[in-house]
Parts: sequence; structure tokens; C-alpha cells
Amino acid sequence: MTSIPERVAVLGTGLIGASIAMAATRVGCTVTGWDADPSVAARAGERAGFEPAGSLEVAVDGADIVVICTPIAAVAGLAERALSAAPHAVVTDTASIKTPIAAAVLPSLDAPRFVPGHPMGGSERSGPEHAAPSLVDDIVWVLTPTGSSDPAQVDLLAGWIGRIGARVLRMTPERHDRLVAFISHLPQVASTALMALAATEEAGEPEILLLAAGGFRDLTRLASSDPVLWSEILRANADQITAALDLYIDRLTALRRDIANADADAIERTFVFAKSARLKLATKPNVRAGVAVLQVPVPDRPGALASLTASLGVGGVNIEDLQIVHSPEGGRGTVHLTVAGADADPAAEILRGASFDPIRLA
Amino acid sequence: MTSIPERVAVLGTGLIGASIAMAATRVGCTVTGWDADPSVAARAGERAGFEPAGSLEVAVDGADIVVICTPIAAVAGLAERALSAAPHAVVTDTASIKTPIAAAVLPSLDAPRFVPGHPMGGSERSGPEHAAPSLVDDIVWVLTPTGSSDPAQVDLLAGWIGRIGARVLRMTPERHDRLVAFISHLPQVASTALMALAATEEAGEPEILLLAAGGFRDLTRLASSDPVLWSEILRANADQITAALDLYIDRLTALRRDIANADADAIERTFVFAKSARLKLATKPNVRAGVAVLQVPVPDRPGALASLTASLGVGGVNIEDLQIVHSPEGGRGTVHLTVAGADADPAAEILRGASFDPIRLA
Repeated sequence: MTSIPERVAVLGTGLIGASIAMAATRVGCTVTGWDADPSVAARAGERAGFEPAGSLEVAVDGADIVVICTPIAAVAGLAERALSAAPHAVVTDTASIKTPIAAAVLPSLDAPRFVPGHPMGGSERSGPEHAAPSLVDDIVWVLTPTGSSDPAQVDLLAGWIGRIGARVLRMTPERHDRLVAFISHLPQVASTALMALAATEEAGEPEILLLAAGGFRDLTRLASSDPVLWSEILRANADQITAALDLYIDRLTALRRDIANADADAIERTFVFAKSARLKLATKPNVRAGVAVLQVPVPDRPGALASLTASLGVGGVNIEDLQIVHSPEGGRGTVHLTVAGADADPAAEILRGASFDPIRLA
Repeated sequence: MTSIPERVAVLGTGLIGASIAMAATRVGCTVTGWDADPSVAARAGERAGFEPAGSLEVAVDGADIVVICTPIAAVAGLAERALSAAPHAVVTDTASIKTPIAAAVLPSLDAPRFVPGHPMGGSERSGPEHAAPSLVDDIVWVLTPTGSSDPAQVDLLAGWIGRIGARVLRMTPERHDRLVAFISHLPQVASTALMALAATEEAGEPEILLLAAGGFRDLTRLASSDPVLWSEILRANADQITAALDLYIDRLTALRRDIANADADAIERTFVFAKSARLKLATKPNVRAGVAVLQVPVPDRPGALASLTASLGVGGVNIEDLQIVHSPEGGRGTVHLTVAGADADPAAEILRGASFDPIRLA
């Protein structure tokens, strides 16, 4: 029997590594940390409350669990060193693409104690200064055991992940990479391509962006993401992303044909199908089931949002999500509030009491 | 010399028509209204404070300005009747596609008093009950004079539109339809196609939408738009939309090639170009120039947003826009606040005083 793991080594102590260290400390684990950049390790140690180790080998000595939180390219080398230096530890990583990791580590050694992973959390920020244990709370943490991962090691790791606050979802590395291609990488490419196209048009039509309202803004928000990071992700997952892109281009081509043919029935069928799926999709990953969306018109003046959010706060309703939306063609502010399903009626009641006029959308 | 117009007739008194009636009343115009559905006219009259006319001809009798606020298909017929029945009035419409309107009205008569238009405002709602004069405030209202529009009539109409609160932008019908194809219709098609693709994948991969975070949600929000309305718009502007779609598919195909070739430089160039353009695009159409965006991490508990918005409200800072964003891979709530540029420093100061930690993004 394996006892509850108490010794955790974090390799790579940026935002994610330091946050995991803090979440582990929170539940009583003993944590050590190491980073290729000693100043990063020092800042993380200060924030997360551990003494930085002078080397990887010192950090993992006696560890039950090793979590590698570095960029993709460094994972395989560190995993091999950790597996050698910590002969009883289960070793995992946090890279956002899993197939290359599994492929790089597995050929070189039989690795029953290596279980690749991907905590689907993060922040707009980077660096250990912005780490927080709450980064781990309720996130989906995918584990992608390989063919040689020992099921007992997978269970041990999964149990620990649940204990520090996340929700484990198990799948193969291939399936993980295929799903994130559709749900994360394709949206990024679609957004960047749209913004690049509109910006190119703007050169000849300076007024085009004057007409850009909420819909265009929603579609292009991702286009401000980090180019270098995304170039790495897209190349690392090229097979899956190009396959997803091909399917997306097929869809666009089919809609283009229906529009050119003025085929009202076909266009409406596609729109009805997409609309129905979108309304079923909750707005926040953690609370997909059982959420409700309220639409609330909000006057455009200082304090209007404050009145809305304050009344809900006083009433004890947690706002799962809040978006100020504009109509597809611009105009007044409307707020879409997402709350837990059980909170929908109380929230609507509270808002009406505060002179708002909510409508339940979903 | 034309005097300031005082008599306005609104034909079609749904959300847009009734809102324009209210905005006109607000500045002292005499308003009449008519709708093909007498109950809609009655409800609009009650809300906007006019006596509904029993017929179009009665409504426009003696009018200086006639505004047609019906679906696209009805505009041309009503415009001809209004031009005949109101021999001195300038007649305009509010349909979201302009070329078919101009083409339908012009061949049948010489129409110097017909000036097509498109107020780029609206609401998630419909019906005169939700009308408000503020719907017109500061919106971009495009006028698309045709070759036979009399410049004096265009000026008269433009002056009145400015007087009721909107900002006039003049362009040809063709240019309007081309620009909205890129900035409004293409995003709609891109969003619907992405949601339809992911929903189709979901049939074989029920967990795919569990991984869907903020980015996917942003990209698919438009997919919940009205299928019948959009089918009409896409068919009415088919030439421009298919041309924009072709360019979009070209962009996606080029990015696909760069990804397949693992061409890091080419991928990064596209991403850098798009990122730079997106950061220049303000988040709210009315305040494109001179806005600032603050990024603020917000704890996920009741009252957290209330504290943020209340502190700004008390400090007199108007929130131009607020979005709760999640990282591309999910996780904690971060708020992007848009405020007037001059408010950026005071807003940051206020937030720090309330124990938030804002970073200025743009």
C-alpha cells in the first residue's frame, strides 16, 4: 500500500509550478522546488514557502511525486533525470500538448512511473509572483497515461491531484491533443486569421474598424495572445491542428455554397444546430452542468454595474461569469450573468428588487 | 432654406422604430407612427407617446422625414408609397444591407428624396416594449446616398440624425455592404461554423466541451444568434459575404500551410500582425479613441465583482466595458476593464486602494 504522498518536488517554478507548490503545501505536503533559473526558484520559494534546491537531483531526492512545469521542449530531459534520481516517485508534467512528451520520454526508457498530465488552468500572467493555490481549484486536470504507465502510479497521482483541489479527467495523449486542437488551438487560429484579414482590409478602408461592434470583438479577442507561445503550440500539435483546420475550412466552404445558392433551408439548418449547441454550452468550464444565464440591460453610467453586482453580493449569489455584450451591430450595454442553476430565481428576484429587468436565457 | 424638421413619420414601430420615435420626441419633433400590425403600432404609441396612424398615408401626411424600420423585404414597397404620399419628405430606411434596397427603389422611380441608411445600434431584444431613446445615443449611423439622392436632402437627414444623438458616417451602398460583410457577417459565419463543427465532434467525444474554456466561448457566442434573421441577411448580401469568406478561407489555408511546414517565422509574423491590430482596436465602438484597458485578477466568490465595480462607481469612473476572461485554457477569473483613457490612472489608483492589483494592458 502506498501511503498518502507527502513529499512533492516541483521542477520549473514559474506561475504554474509555484501555484501547484502552494496548493500542495495547503494540504500538508512537504514541497521542494528547483528551477533552471535560480532567481525564479528563489522568488517561487519565497512566495510558496519552500527552500529552493540547489539541483534537480537534490530537489527530487526522496520525492513521492515530481511535477515538471517547464516549456514543452525541456520536459523529456528533466523527466528522465527525475525518474533516475527519484527511484520511487511518480513523475508527471504540465505541458499543453501530450503526444510529443510521451513519444520523447518513452523510447528512451521503460517508464511505468511517468504519467503525462495537463492541468487546464492558467492565468493571463506569468512568473511565480502571480502564483496562487486557487489556480488549481476545480480546474480540469487531464492525465494521459501512456501504454507503459503503471495503473497504480496513475491512481496515486490522480488521488493526489484530487486532494489538492482539481478534477482529474483521464484520456490517451492522442485523444487529448485531438480535443484541444478543436477546442483551444482551432479557435486561436480562427481568431488570428480574422483579425489579420480585417487589419489588411483596413489599409484600404480606414473606416472598417469604426463599424466593428461586439461580435467582431468577441471573435478577435484571442488574437492578442502571445505569438511565440502559440507558434510553439501549433507546431507541436501540427497534425491534429491541420486536421481540425481542414474540417473547419470544409464547414466554411459548405456555408459559402449555401449562401451563394441562396439556400435558406440549408443555412437555417446549420444556424439552428449551432445555436442549440451553443445554448447548451455553459459559459464557465467548471460549472457546465446546472448553470443559468440571465440577460440584464444596464445603463451606461458610473455605478450601474456596481449596483447590479452589489445587490447580488449582498444576496449571497456568486457570479460565475459576467459579460457586457453589445448587439451584433453595436449599441447599448447588456450584461449576460451566469449563476448556478439554483441561484437563477433568487438572482432574478434580487435584480428586479434593484430595478433591473433580467430575462433568463438558458 | 430648410427649417429644422419637426414632423417625423416612423413606418414599422418595433424596437428600432419606436426607439427612433422616442429619440425624435426627445428633441422636440412631432412624431407619427404606423405599423403593418396595428397592435405593434398601438404598443409603440403608448411607449413613445404618439397616436398611431390608421394608414401609412395618414402617418406620412405633411412629414419632413420618413424613417422606414421594417425587415429588408418590405422597405422598397413602403419607400415608394411614402415618397408619393409625402411629396416634400426625405425618406430613409434602417435595413442592415443597403445595395438591394437602393436597387429595388431606384429603378422604379427617380428618387432624389430617398437616402438609404443603417443605424448601427440595436439590442438583444425586440418589440416596442424594449425601445429606448438611448438606443440611438452615439451610435454610428451610416447613410448611403445613391446616385440620385439630392445632396441637400442628404444634408438635411444627416443634420437631423446628429440632432437626435447619433454620429453620421456617409458611404456608398456598395461600400457599406462590403465593410459589414467583413466586420459583422463574416464573424457570424465563422462563429456558427466553429460551433457546428465542435458540436458534431461532441457526438463521438462527449468530453470535448468539458475542455472548452474562455477562448472557445468567445468565438462561439455569436452562434446563438437568430437563424431566420441571419439567413435573410446572408442571402441579401451574398456577393460580399462569399468574397469575404473566400479571403478568410485563404488566410486559414495559408496558416495551415505554415503550421504543416513548421514555419515558426511565418506563424509568428501572422500572430504579431494580428496581435498588434487587435490591441489597437478599442473594445467599444463609441469610444475607439482614447480608451485604456486594465487587467484585474478577481477572486471567485460572491461580492468580489461588487467590490471592484462599487469602488469605481464611488470614484466616479464609468466602466466602458467589463469582461471576465479566463485564460485560453481555463482557470481563474480575470477582469478586463475598459475605461476612458483619462480615467485609467485614477481607476488603477482606486482599485489598488480596494486591494485589487490592476495592470494596464492598452
